[in-house]
Amino acid sequence: MPLFPLYLLFLLAAVSILPHSHQYHPLDPLTPAELTLVSTILTTYYPGTTHNLTFQYIGLEEPNKDALLSWLQKNQIKTPIPPRQASVIARINHKTHQIIVDLSHNKVVYDQVYHGYGYPLLTFEEQIAANALARTHPPFLAAIRRRRLKIEEVVCGSFTVGWYGEKRRNRRLVRVMCYYLDGTVNLYMRPIEAITVTVDLDEMKIIEFRDRLTVAVPKADGTDYRESQQQPPFGPQLMGITVVQPDGPSFTIDGHIVRWGNWDFHLSFDARAGPIISLASIYDTEKHKTRRVLYRGFVSELFVPYMDLTEEWYYRTFFDAGEYGYGLCAVSLQPYRDCPANAVFMDAYIAGQNGMPVRMYNVFCIFERYSGDILWRHTETSVPSEVVTEVRPEVTLVVRMVSTVGNYDYINDWEFKQSGSMKMTVGLTGLLEVRGSNYTHKDQIKEEVYGTLLAENTLGAHHDHFLTYHLDLDVDGEANSFVKSKLQMTRVPDQSSPRKSYWEVVSETAKTESDAKVKLGLESADLLVVNPSKKTRIGNFVGYRLIPGSVVGPLLSDDDYAQIRGAFTMYNLWVTPYNKSEKWAGGLYADQSRGDDNLAAWTSRNREIENKDIVLWYTVGFHHVPYQEDFPVMPTLSSGFELRPSNFFENNPMLKVKPLKVVRSSN
Amino acid sequence: MPLFPLYLLFLLAAVSILPHSHQYHPLDPLTPAELTLVSTILTTYYPGTTHNLTFQYIGLEEPNKDALLSWLQKNQIKTPIPPRQASVIARINHKTHQIIVDLSHNKVVYDQVYHGYGYPLLTFEEQIAANALARTHPPFLAAIRRRRLKIEEVVCGSFTVGWYGEKRRNRRLVRVMCYYLDGTVNLYMRPIEAITVTVDLDEMKIIEFRDRLTVAVPKADGTDYRESQQQPPFGPQLMGITVVQPDGPSFTIDGHIVRWGNWDFHLSFDARAGPIISLASIYDTEKHKTRRVLYRGFVSELFVPYMDLTEEWYYRTFFDAGEYGYGLCAVSLQPYRDCPANAVFMDAYIAGQNGMPVRMYNVFCIFERYSGDILWRHTETSVPSEVVTEVRPEVTLVVRMVSTVGNYDYINDWEFKQSGSMKMTVGLTGLLEVRGSNYTHKDQIKEEVYGTLLAENTLGAHHDHFLTYHLDLDVDGEANSFVKSKLQMTRVPDQSSPRKSYWEVVSETAKTESDAKVKLGLESADLLVVNPSKKTRIGNFVGYRLIPGSVVGPLLSDDDYAQIRGAFTMYNLWVTPYNKSEKWAGGLYADQSRGDDNLAAWTSRNREIENKDIVLWYTVGFHHVPYQEDFPVMPTLSSGFELRPSNFFENNPMLKVKPLKVVRSSN
Repeated sequence: MPLFPLYLLFLLAAVSILPHSHQYHPLDPLTPAELTLVSTILTTYYPGTTHNLTFQYIGLEEPNKDALLSWLQKNQIKTPIPPRQASVIARINHKTHQIIVDLSHNKVVYDQVYHGYGYPLLTFEEQIAANALARTHPPFLAAIRRRRLKIEEVVCGSFTVGWYGEKRRNRRLVRVMCYYLDGTVNLYMRPIEAITVTVDLDEMKIIEFRDRLTVAVPKADGTDYRESQQQPPFGPQLMGITVVQPDGPSFTIDGHIVRWGNWDFHLSFDARAGPIISLASIYDTEKHKTRRVLYRGFVSELFVPYMDLTEEWYYRTFFDAGEYGYGLCAVSLQPYRDCPANAVFMDAYIAGQNGMPVRMYNVFCIFERYSGDILWRHTETSVPSEVVTEVRPEVTLVVRMVSTVGNYDYINDWEFKQSGSMKMTVGLTGLLEVRGSNYTHKDQIKEEVYGTLLAENTLGAHHDHFLTYHLDLDVDGEANSFVKSKLQMTRVPDQSSPRKSYWEVVSETAKTESDAKVKLGLESADLLVVNPSKKTRIGNFVGYRLIPGSVVGPLLSDDDYAQIRGAFTMYNLWVTPYNKSEKWAGGLYADQSRGDDNLAAWTSRNREIENKDIVLWYTVGFHHVPYQEDFPVMPTLSSGFELRPSNFFENNPMLKVKPLKVVRSSN
Repeated sequence: MPLFPLYLLFLLAAVSILPHSHQYHPLDPLTPAELTLVSTILTTYYPGTTHNLTFQYIGLEEPNKDALLSWLQKNQIKTPIPPRQASVIARINHKTHQIIVDLSHNKVVYDQVYHGYGYPLLTFEEQIAANALARTHPPFLAAIRRRRLKIEEVVCGSFTVGWYGEKRRNRRLVRVMCYYLDGTVNLYMRPIEAITVTVDLDEMKIIEFRDRLTVAVPKADGTDYRESQQQPPFGPQLMGITVVQPDGPSFTIDGHIVRWGNWDFHLSFDARAGPIISLASIYDTEKHKTRRVLYRGFVSELFVPYMDLTEEWYYRTFFDAGEYGYGLCAVSLQPYRDCPANAVFMDAYIAGQNGMPVRMYNVFCIFERYSGDILWRHTETSVPSEVVTEVRPEVTLVVRMVSTVGNYDYINDWEFKQSGSMKMTVGLTGLLEVRGSNYTHKDQIKEEVYGTLLAENTLGAHHDHFLTYHLDLDVDGEANSFVKSKLQMTRVPDQSSPRKSYWEVVSETAKTESDAKVKLGLESADLLVVNPSKKTRIGNFVGYRLIPGSVVGPLLSDDDYAQIRGAFTMYNLWVTPYNKSEKWAGGLYADQSRGDDNLAAWTSRNREIENKDIVLWYTVGFHHVPYQEDFPVMPTLSSGFELRPSNFFENNPMLKVKPLKVVRSSN
């Protein structure tokens, strides 16, 4: 729930539209000039005199995959790139339009009013306007006065409302919830409970006001996390430590193409998804060719349901990407702190509500990570008259974004390894969403409070985070199959062996979408994407496998409205046939969605997925029971998964990796 | 299966017994002088003229916990330490003796012949002798000649034989299996299959020889992993990268006590367990006192069952700690490669079969790890007229050992975090155990081969690794309880809320051992160890929780002999009341054990564990289906778990951690 968005500050900085020194890549995000062009075309098409037009989303309309792949195969210098198009979601006179603008021909090529359930992303501007409404609403002011709070210390945020079975509700609503500063910047630890201000975003007016009861606002003491506000005793200070690359980094960035070691990939930014990794490919030194692994990967949705049933809390079942924009909420990364000394930073552009480009500084950092890990090693003492020790330290490449969706900070890493692995990690930090309460000691609590008492008057609410990744793997080509290699305990017929059992590998190729659904924790299996038309020399199908991290699934009933909307979390892994329109696991219109356009709904068609261009959807989940250590700011908790080559190479591709040059520091 | 042990090379180095500059800590490992004293006392007690004495294990006989804790509470400079004792397991005239030698009074205080099942650790010397026997055995030489192999290129290893229901077998046996060098140092990729040489270790003679059939020995091509043996084309070389601490490390080492940040702990070495972390405690800046977390933690057993039923393979169900010695197999860590530039190294001593001390160089490295991760952060844009960004980069302390048990290299890390977390990680690398085969292409295979064809004639056998950690947690004192906080999906009564469900936390305190057994993956729960007599100010029990990594359990039938021996893997987590004698999850005498003295057997008494000094046993598991990338050397695959403070502190203990000093490199 962004309150005052960072990007309004960016607006103050002049947007300089620099000529690009490199040719466009078809997957490059829209440039400031292109964003300006989109808004010019559409404000001409729907003039402001007769139309109330707001841009809820502008991004690249991705070229068709076959057009892009065919362009890639040709001489890219001489062949024109596929036409540049923008995908726009706009509210025009209180209707949602899905629009495609052709930027080569300066025209609208598609414009459709959406009549289904759900609404587009919220803009920062309308959230700010909604928040401001509360502060001018006399009953709200009275409620603040009654609590003996100072209105100038009150800040508010806009919360999406979800869907709870209402038959008809064709209004874009938010609930405005407020917090108290007064001696701290940690407003999230100081909720002003029991006041509900419901705002219609299109009308931009308050349609309902409730002040249910008075609950103590937690004190400011101990909540501020700024270095400047801390009092002794301090903990021990560690000595300085840094990473040094005297000869510079090993990667290059050419426009949006990043090249490092054997890897190259395209890195783009999207207001909804944040980082998009495309065309991730690895150069196979043995085959002398570049082999594609991932056509496109990004975080498709973040589902964050809270488990508190009180009136101001029950509806908090957020879709952080589809409602608030995982990219929109990206923050400026701090050199030496968010990223190590050897990091390189990248900016991005988004469109404001009026369509004009806004520069976001340092939204990505890219760095080589050298953590002291070992890529591979062995010590051999059995060879007569010599001890063989071979060790290769591990260096990886990390692409990082941090998205601060109101209180929570998501640290989003894509890590590329020399082994051909890709590791996706999300770290959760930032501030909890807490409920104000009159309780000051646990012994007073005799009812269900849906959370942990973290400090006096402060309940840390139970909640989940589910991050669903869209992974369009193209393992050495588009046509792939999903194979579950089950590890099955097998009894040995009596007397045929001194052993009574072993496990065998039973590989099942998923023919349809329903074959491919996986709930982790129920059985042991390797989860593979193979190319059924490519084999290694000795006959194994080339593939990659997905190695899960923690095993977390939803704990809501399937018929609960929030779970119907978030049904894409029902399985940890799904596989769908590639379909350009199926990007957003929670549906294109996530706000107030009803589950009719999500991953679970799409797969109910049970389409064929064998030897087809397939997409994996994998969900990283967290159940979060808060503990006092999460107060007033949370230590990072991380989880993730790995995509690891599995018979993709003929042998260990790092066999020939030379040991790192020893850098002897002058220090 | 160590073939030629590294430590024999160490023997060549003079063992210099240096006076220690610091006072002994009662948990310090035995010094070279103490090891010498033990062997002198026992060879006097059992003179060589009449006794055949071999030392299978010598280590510190840990002081009683109450004696140690009482010593810790006193003035340690003035109070004498508890008497130093050595724990010895020896074979004397073909019988196993368990002996305790008092080093203060130079006498044997306990000497008992063991009459139960199972045998002690194998010594390197007897393995070498057994391996050498094969090479002088005429039928073996004939078998090698028949295969047209050169005997001078053959190297052999000793494999423990397990137990398969034999009623009576009172012999210490190994099977000697051999490999072929001839152009490679990667002997493990060149097994000479189908020859079985069974050796009686006490008699040191061959008691059985079988040569079953002739199988192709895989070629040497492509197996050598030495840098010097690689041919172009090479992969891209990365630029140099290193870690720099211009003001030196932030930790100190005083004897065996390591102090870093808020942490201090004792680091010891044991031939069987490898690193032992004791008395890990954290200084609580708010409470102005040091609070203990872990009394003693170590890897108790490694169970590595293979899934190949062929005659030379079915019995391969190794106990790498109890049979081969996880510490005994430690290798000398390579500066700049196994550990980063800022690492500090420690040596250790073991006893040879004759009891004499052997110095092992660089068995531990200790370093601060700065990987670019973020300890905590938040960006706040809602505070009027300022953007607040606070970020603390993460630096941790790692203690590393690498144990190379024959072909496999285990990278064993204990990581301490400023947050109070301890993270235990094991990385698997090194060489697979492969079976020679006549198959050269997968299409030829129509039978169960129990593995993956990795290269011509090379089958990578399916297998598991289970590492069971002994974790004697003392969370703020000895008397602790184990609490399972179950996350339970709960239906909401109709109409009482727009929601239909939520999850609630149902905490159950384990009263007895059977209450505490956990199979991961079946339910969602936070797994806590709390101190039931200590609460935070607001009333939560102080605790730590165990956060599992991957979820892996055994896939052998419960009645299979290997699984009866390895029954400590049946649950991922067990809790027992502290008992000084219950150290080794697979039993004190693991070789040929029968499961009557393992963790599963102990817990069958179902003892009370509530508000008692308790020990957690946690198993990190891997099911390993080999892939071609694992050939000829395996990329590291890691897993582990975390112990994280959970209401242990009043709030985030890193709130006051200052940002790292920015080190501006001169490079």
